This record gives sequence, C-alpha cells and structure tokens, in this order.
Amino acid sequence: MTSKADIRMRGFLKRTAVKTLLSLIMKHSQQLSAEEIPTVEACGRVLVQDIVSPANVPNFDRSAMDGYALDAESTFGASEYNPLMFQVVGQVTPGESYQERIQPGEALSIMTGGPLPKGTNAVLMAEHAERDGDQIQVLEAVAPGKHVGQIGEDVKQNQILLKKGRCLRPQDIAVLASVGLSRVEVVRKPVVELLITGNELLKPGAQPSGVHIIDSNSVMLTPLIERDGAVLKAVHQLPDERALIRQHLRDSTADLICMTGGTSVGIEDHGPTLVEELGELLVHGIPMRPAAPTGFGLIAGTSAEKRKKVFLLPGNPVSCLSAYDYFVGRALRLMGGRSAEWPYRTKMVKLATKISSEIGRIEYVRLRIEDVQAFLIAAGGASILSSTTLADGFLLTEEDSEGYAEGEEVQVWLYDA
Amino acid sequence: MTSKADIRMRGFLKRTAVKTLLSLIMKHSQQLSAEEIPTVEACGRVLVQDIVSPANVPNFDRSAMDGYALDAESTFGASEYNPLMFQVVGQVTPGESYQERIQPGEALSIMTGGPLPKGTNAVLMAEHAERDGDQIQVLEAVAPGKHVGQIGEDVKQNQILLKKGRCLRPQDIAVLASVGLSRVEVVRKPVVELLITGNELLKPGAQPSGVHIIDSNSVMLTPLIERDGAVLKAVHQLPDERALIRQHLRDSTADLICMTGGTSVGIEDHGPTLVEELGELLVHGIPMRPAAPTGFGLIAGTSAEKRKKVFLLPGNPVSCLSAYDYFVGRALRLMGGRSAEWPYRTKMVKLATKISSEIGRIEYVRLRIEDVQAFLIAAGGASILSSTTLADGFLLTEEDSEGYAEGEEVQVWLYDA
Repeated sequence: MTSKADIRMRGFLKRTAVKTLLSLIMKHSQQLSAEEIPTVEACGRVLVQDIVSPANVPNFDRSAMDGYALDAESTFGASEYNPLMFQVVGQVTPGESYQERIQPGEALSIMTGGPLPKGTNAVLMAEHAERDGDQIQVLEAVAPGKHVGQIGEDVKQNQILLKKGRCLRPQDIAVLASVGLSRVEVVRKPVVELLITGNELLKPGAQPSGVHIIDSNSVMLTPLIERDGAVLKAVHQLPDERALIRQHLRDSTADLICMTGGTSVGIEDHGPTLVEELGELLVHGIPMRPAAPTGFGLIAGTSAEKRKKVFLLPGNPVSCLSAYDYFVGRALRLMGGRSAEWPYRTKMVKLATKISSEIGRIEYVRLRIEDVQAFLIAAGGASILSSTTLADGFLLTEEDSEGYAEGEEVQVWLYDA
Repeated sequence: MTSKADIRMRGFLKRTAVKTLLSLIMKHSQQLSAEEIPTVEACGRVLVQDIVSPANVPNFDRSAMDGYALDAESTFGASEYNPLMFQVVGQVTPGESYQERIQPGEALSIMTGGPLPKGTNAVLMAEHAERDGDQIQVLEAVAPGKHVGQIGEDVKQNQILLKKGRCLRPQDIAVLASVGLSRVEVVRKPVVELLITGNELLKPGAQPSGVHIIDSNSVMLTPLIERDGAVLKAVHQLPDERALIRQHLRDSTADLICMTGGTSVGIEDHGPTLVEELGELLVHGIPMRPAAPTGFGLIAGTSAEKRKKVFLLPGNPVSCLSAYDYFVGRALRLMGGRSAEWPYRTKMVKLATKISSEIGRIEYVRLRIEDVQAFLIAAGGASILSSTTLADGFLLTEEDSEGYAEGEEVQVWLYDA
C-alpha cells in the first residue's frame, strides 16, 4: 500500500505477504554505526572490526605447576639410581620476579603462574623431587619446556583474537581485558520509542476503572526490546489525537518507533495515514492472525541512518505480541548487528489437537505442552492476553498450509528461553 | 575434606565426587526470601505465591469489531429480502461510554474495544449493514453475544492468574498490570561478592606489564552472575594476604562469595584453610579437569539465610569458567527460585576427533562446531582462555566413561544462547 489516498474505512484492499514484509525488514534494517565502550561492559555487544592482540598472554614464560625451575639439560642422567643434587637458591611466586640467573646445579622453588628466572627452561614437579633443607634430589630427567607455559601460550601478539560481527561472550571480554584492551568498538544499540495510543488506556500501575483499561502493551514490550539488544528511550501514552501522534512520529529522534493502537482501518486509526503523510507506508495489513493490521513504514530524517523505521502494531495485546516478536524484534536484532533468528528454543511436539489454518494465512497458535504433547489453547482471540500466559510456546502455521492433523509432529517455539 | 588440619602442601588426599558436590549445592541452595517490587520491573523474576486476579479484564462488555451495537432479538427475521431499518443514535469509541439505553430498533455505532451500551447484547459488523444517513439496513439476523467480548473474557476476577514459582515472562507482567497489580512479591536476587586474589593481578582496564597479568576472571564472571539472576555487589581485588582475605570472607554480607585464586594446595593458597577456620569446608578438590582445585563451604552468619556460601574457584581462567558455570551458576539459580538447568542450548554433533577421558574424571572439553561436526580445540590447558573463545561449545565427559570415539554422536552445550 503506497497510495497517498486515505485508506481509513476502506479495509485492507491489498494485504502484503508476510515474506514480503520480512524481506522489506531485512532490506531496511542495516547495521547501525559504531560506538566505543569499556570492554568490561561489552558482553552481548557486537564487534565492528577484527580485534588484533597488541600483546602476548602471558608476556613471560611461567610455571604451570608448583615445583622447581631449573635448566633441563643439567638434569639429564638423573634417575632413582643416580639422583642429582640441586641447590634451592630461593623462591618465586606469581607477581614476583627473581632477578639472578640460575646456574646449572641450582633450582628455584616456583609456584604455578610464577615467572621462570633466567637460566631455566623447565619445571620439575614438587612431587618428583626429594627436598632436604635447601637441597633437592632430582630423581628423573626433565625435558626442556616441561611444565612451562611459554610467552604467548594463550594469546600471541598480532594474532586475530576475535572477528568482526562477533557477539561478545563473557570469556571474549575477559580475553580482551587480558591483552590490555580496555575499550572496544561495537555496533551501537538501536534506540526505540513507544507510542501507545488509545483514549481507553490508563498507565501501567493504575487500577482498571469503568470503560478504561490498562496499557499492558508497554509493560510487555519493554523487556522484549531489551532482550533484542535495543534501548527503550521513551514510552509515550497518547490519546487518539491525530495532531499529537503526528508530532511524536515526526519529531522522534529514535531509530525505530513502535506505535500500538490506531493502526487498523477504523476512523480513529491515524497511524497508517500519518506514516503515509510523513514518509512512506510500505506495508499495511498482512495475512496473519492475529496481527492483521500490522504496518511498516519509513519516515525520512536528516541522514540515511536517521530514516526512522515505524512499526504499526495492533493494540490488542496478542496481536501486539506476535507482531512485535515476528517483525520488530527481527529489525532490532539486525540493526544491532545480530542474527535475525528468534531467541527462543525450539521443541518437537506431537499435536493433541488438530490445527486449522486458511491457505494464504499465517496463524500464531498458542500451545500448552505436556512432555511432548501439545494442546491448543482454546481462548484464541487477539484480545486474550492470558492465552499467552497459559501457553508454553507457540507455532506459526505455514502460509501455504491448511493446518496440521492431530498427532502430527511439529516444531514449536518455547516462550521460556 | 572436613578435617580442621592445614591441608596446604599435602595435595588433595581425597577428592569429592562431582555428583556429591552437586547434591551438596542442591541441599544448601535454598530459595531466598521474598521482596515486593514494581510489576513493570518483574520480568525474569520468580513469584513466591499464586496470584489471584482482583479484577475482571475487561470489566465491561466490549465490541470485538467495528460496527453497530444493538439488541440481537430485534434483528431476528432480517434478511436481504426483508431488511430491517435501525436508527443510529450515536457513536462510542474505546474509552467513552454511552449513557442512554438503546431501544429496540436503535443502534449505536461502535469501534473495536468500545463498551456496549445498555439495551444491547450484540454487534453487527459494519460490512453487514447498509448505512444511509443516520439509518442502517440490517440484512441478516445477529445472534445474541455476537462480536461481544464479555466481562472477564481475558481474565476473571478471583481466577488464579499465575502460579507460585513462575519465572515471569513479558506477557505475564503485562497481564499483572492489566488487572491493576502494580507490585508483586518475588524471590529476592542472590547477592554475590567476588574476591579476586593474586599478587600477580592487575585490575581490568590496565595494561599487562612485566610479570603482572590482568585479572580477567572478574570480567568474565560479571555477566555470568547477572545471567544467573544475581546481583554482583562488589569485586575485591586482593593480594595473597591471609589476614586481608580472612577479613573479607568473614565480614561479607553477601549471600554467596566466589573467591578466585589461592584455592589449591600451594603455600599461598589461603582459601581452603580460611573457610575451614571461619566455617565449614564441605568440598575441596574434585575429579574434574580443569577445575580440580574447586572448593565449596559455608561460613555461618546471623541467620539461616545469612549462612554464606563460599565457592573457591581456581585462578586459571578456563578452570574458573567451568567451575563457575557448573557449580556456582547452579547455586545462584536455585537461590533465586529458578530451574537449576543450564541456560545453554544443546546440539547433537558428530565428533571429528576422538576424546579420551580417564574413568573417574570429568573433562570440560571445548569444541569447534562446523555444521554437525565437532572438532576438539587442541590448546586445552587450564590457563588458555582463548580456547573458550575459539570454541563454539563444550561437553562434559561422563565420570564413568573413557571418552568418545571419533564419529560418535554426542550432545554439546552451545556457548551462544
């Protein structure tokens, strides 16, 4: 729907196939620019470039055992029948360094992680030496390099440590810290604004009263937006006033706006026409149930990156959940440099109930799962949010399918990560 | 090892089986007490009691369609051949209420979500009425209740909404907000303190220098502790000074302390003897590689809940990671009322390399995965943290197994959630 004419009260003349919407999202959700942040805060963030190590880890030869550092060659010939005596000239623990050169026939007591002194190239395990005062009997020969962790054994200077596009794990930021990289360049987080529209809505925290209901959509979307790596900058609860909604759509400096409510084809549904007026309405109306009145558009800004994405999400909470989850979350993950894939676990289950679906339409089906059996949640309307709390997971029917027979094996997505 | 004698430099005389450590963790990781927090912040938190709804949602009969609210009985007999005329007496949108009673032969224009006025019990879809000025022609009879979302259709007053023990999802907190529950009682988060010991360590953010290395363990553990639902209250980087470490262990008000470094049987390893001195050292030394010098103990406090758990984690980063992940994370999840299960996805893979393991020992094996083939990461030492960044996942060998043959199918845990 790219016509400039008012589409209200005409119904969805032409719905956009869901796969078309998905490819439009893919096309318009380019990775955002970079920002530099402290490495210790970078877990879960995405690298914008390969990281080359500026240092060796460790930057000295270190002992991998508690024992004695010595010159391996001077132990050659040692055996139980021919023990060799070494003079223990001191001790070194991690964080210390022993300055003197160790001579053949001398040994230095060393703890795991301690730096090998000059003149040594191996460590004899404590268990393999008989200590007697400041002397040890060496009962077997030690090979050069034995129990020595060499310079760069963990990380070598100039080695590529981590590649561009990497979503950093706890151990990744630990490695970055260990080479002394205190800051790191990552994809910046998408900034999101929520416009929650509807005269009937009260803010979360209020009591439902008379014909007013609580805005539950902002409560639900907030943790989902965070899950998808974005920053929720503001939530605006707005009445169905065209000028006010227009102003918020136009003036927002967010990367992405989710507008809930006012997105269908009723007389109070200002969303689609406003997006059309301020920018480009790429999609309005999709063959998905619930969530048919979903829309997607762009509102131009001052730079390519500031072309705001606008998602129009139905106000009914199940529609809102499914449309956020299938479309908006994907856009946010792509903008943040992540995989578009859903962050849900999957499970193969056997349907205890037949599921019907019209060809050409995708159904968001909520299921209760007992062991490997899946039961349809009966109360399935777009407004029945409790259906998603009763459910353990969901599936989306295929667009070209009439549904699934009882007993059929299907893959479901589990709500609990 | 519960002997009060100094265990340093004697080696691990008796290791505790890993399954024994796991059951001790299970036994001592009781769920913490409750706290009341705002519902909008409760995603991911665990309910301490069943939640009963104080309200109906909606609390009025509402229209599920754009159309006309009317008395169903007065449409009986209507058909294309016998259209009935109704007077449209006004309009109601969501958030408004229409005060007058609608009489038979009258209709009220109504938008989806709008409250049904008195005298009506059904909604005729806009598409099924021919409008002509302030009159409509009704072309088919409407059944009572048609397109009406009745009081309590989503949630009924006094219904159990969510059960005790529930880890709250985004849609759960939305439902709680919708019934007007602005606060909710959840299990409080475990409070954790990190004691990072080692004279050789520099704080993260510094450059490695000379024989000093960066403490990377605190960097790695911070996001893992958060992942497991706990609050990291403080990170103390301490030298290997017995009195200082003792003071921190004794005075900490955390629920759980992770001490890294100084946990083995060397002369600088103060952890185990200090726990023994201040409380009870339940486990020291396990047949797991790396992570053999892992310990677990309790230090008494002022209340049952304040009996601090102390985990002694090896300073070598791979050991630290595996011991945190297998033991500490589990304790934290249980204390927070969650499932003990690992928050990693699993995958079945085919081993491209044989994996050897000693009977009686568990190996933490890091694997690189290409499609469904898994390759052993060769650099496997406890100090080689980069082995965990090269790996895509890991497996733990079975205690009673000699390992796995090349080509064998095994289940691995994927680092990326």
